Amino acid sequence: MIIDCHGHYTTAPKPLEDWRNRQVEGLKNPAVTPKASELRIGDDELRESIEKNQLKLMRERGADLTIFSPRASFMAHHIGGFETSSTWAAICNELIHRVSRLFPQHFAGCGMLPQSPGVDPKTCLPELKRCVEEYGFVAVNLNPDPSGGHWTSPPLSDRHWFPIYEALVEYDIPAMIHVSTSCNPCFHTTGSHYLNADTTAFVQCLTADLFKEFPKLRFIIPHGGGAVPYHWGRFRGIAQDLKKPLLTDHLLKNISFDTCVYHQPGIDLLTRVMPVDNILFGSEMIGAVRGIDPESGHYYDDTKRYIDATPNLDEAARRRVYEANARRVYPRLDAALRTGRLRPGAQGGVTS
Amino acid sequence: MIIDCHGHYTTAPKPLEDWRNRQVEGLKNPAVTPKASELRIGDDELRESIEKNQLKLMRERGADLTIFSPRASFMAHHIGGFETSSTWAAICNELIHRVSRLFPQHFAGCGMLPQSPGVDPKTCLPELKRCVEEYGFVAVNLNPDPSGGHWTSPPLSDRHWFPIYEALVEYDIPAMIHVSTSCNPCFHTTGSHYLNADTTAFVQCLTADLFKEFPKLRFIIPHGGGAVPYHWGRFRGIAQDLKKPLLTDHLLKNISFDTCVYHQPGIDLLTRVMPVDNILFGSEMIGAVRGIDPESGHYYDDTKRYIDATPNLDEAARRRVYEANARRVYPRLDAALRTGRLRPGAQGGVTS
Repeated sequence: MIIDCHGHYTTAPKPLEDWRNRQVEGLKNPAVTPKASELRIGDDELRESIEKNQLKLMRERGADLTIFSPRASFMAHHIGGFETSSTWAAICNELIHRVSRLFPQHFAGCGMLPQSPGVDPKTCLPELKRCVEEYGFVAVNLNPDPSGGHWTSPPLSDRHWFPIYEALVEYDIPAMIHVSTSCNPCFHTTGSHYLNADTTAFVQCLTADLFKEFPKLRFIIPHGGGAVPYHWGRFRGIAQDLKKPLLTDHLLKNISFDTCVYHQPGIDLLTRVMPVDNILFGSEMIGAVRGIDPESGHYYDDTKRYIDATPNLDEAARRRVYEANARRVYPRLDAALRTGRLRPGAQGGVTS
Repeated sequence: MIIDCHGHYTTAPKPLEDWRNRQVEGLKNPAVTPKASELRIGDDELRESIEKNQLKLMRERGADLTIFSPRASFMAHHIGGFETSSTWAAICNELIHRVSRLFPQHFAGCGMLPQSPGVDPKTCLPELKRCVEEYGFVAVNLNPDPSGGHWTSPPLSDRHWFPIYEALVEYDIPAMIHVSTSCNPCFHTTGSHYLNADTTAFVQCLTADLFKEFPKLRFIIPHGGGAVPYHWGRFRGIAQDLKKPLLTDHLLKNISFDTCVYHQPGIDLLTRVMPVDNILFGSEMIGAVRGIDPESGHYYDDTKRYIDATPNLDEAARRRVYEANARRVYPRLDAALRTGRLRPGAQGGVTS
């Protein structure tokens, strides 16, 4: 089985965006603020938006199941306040839930949290609870910078975030550390902000002792870990200068990296540097890079090709990257697969 | 000849730090503000600080000449206003000038600019002029984020920066894009802020057309380009989606990367992905990572070892990385070497 740990619903039907635009407009002109109930998207629309996009590409490329979350750049936690994010997160998560019910063999849900700059993360707990208990989601995305590129929240090692971590540990679900749109003109959202956030999150953990406090907390750092594997020597050296334990002990029991690195040399580096158990297959399709690489003739984000081609993994290692590691890091996914709630490998389409 | 394009004066005699501390204290209590003339460091102190540190390691490791600039993390442009930075930059640059005169065969100067958040970069021009015309410096460091991790300046592609670029082009000197200390608790200075800045600067150029406006402008992006080579596919893909030219045409005529990547797999990636003409030898020693790598038994920042060991470069390519590329990117260094003003390979020590 091949599990893609990193997919966003970037192809949601247009009414979702229209609703959000009205919500944003409503921040200036409350009269136009829409009610949640005004968003109407039928199952057929949902099915079509998935069948023609993610599911089509999963079939073409050979992935069985995607851990699927709301569109990252649309989370935009910097817009409005807690109420804005709360309503928006509820809507987006419910759509993910519906997709995962329409295609239970192909999509497992991952929630967005209703974060808002300067607001206590504790306020995210009711939505997190709904995601896990009502929707059966297997993870959440956690945004280390809800300000959208101004980096005004404390580091991930700060007590500020502990209420979220306590819930994650209680539910035994991991968090993917994923920022959203940059509203700072210095940072291009998918070009620099995403990768910077990955590196930043990793170093926030490196310089602290978060996982001593939460030994069972698990983070997935996406986009191949930002700059981390490329600068692994630098990070080992900085940890050493700071008298921290070896990174394998200090961080790698708790942090995994996905494979959203869009060329062969990058995947070769990742698989050469990182222990195989810390690498989870991911593509983030349909996402940041949509074209075909003229050098390879294939989609940049068809990351399975690079993993299949790398000389650094044998068949057993590949199986861990494709399946076993994800089942270990996302135990609720593993449980669902074991109990047959998710049934990858079955024919696609709707199940009753 | 082996030219290290990236060295900072991290070992300056203690009176420099004491002077700076008094200057910073003077921002609250003007009575203690020191005059520039109160800083007294003798030639013997300068000689010793270099002989026992950088020069010792250059000899041990086999580098002949270092392009040498003030300590990056001490630039701290966020402290005080323009006057603060102006006095501080003048002092730091003068010390670099004195080092380059004491060891003319081993150090070529690179200036820091008296940047200050919210201040017009035009105010840096007198110091830049002094660096080139009086001190014979071959480059300057340009800080894309003088706020120290709050990223409040416009992107490097903005007209805001054009006065600096006009001077760089006029003098035919490159700029190394290098931030300073982070005063944002989200970012560890050498762990994430430096690397994020490298990636950010590259993407600011990618998404704009700066080098159409300034075809002769040259940037060195340090620390191996941050996350750039590891995510080269992503950046090629983003440029393609934005209808930009191929990155070789769009950026690589103007941007080079140094080799401050502190493990073999990182250098192997850099030299596999980037055209050899865009790679300049650099170590940033004595800098961010000071320990010995237990995996190799050598200093993490002894980057020459990785370049010598990589299978991706033949002898001719290595010579370009070690010398020819630097002489092309820093034509004033090349001119000085040709006219004998700098004489690498001669015995170290003072020349009259």
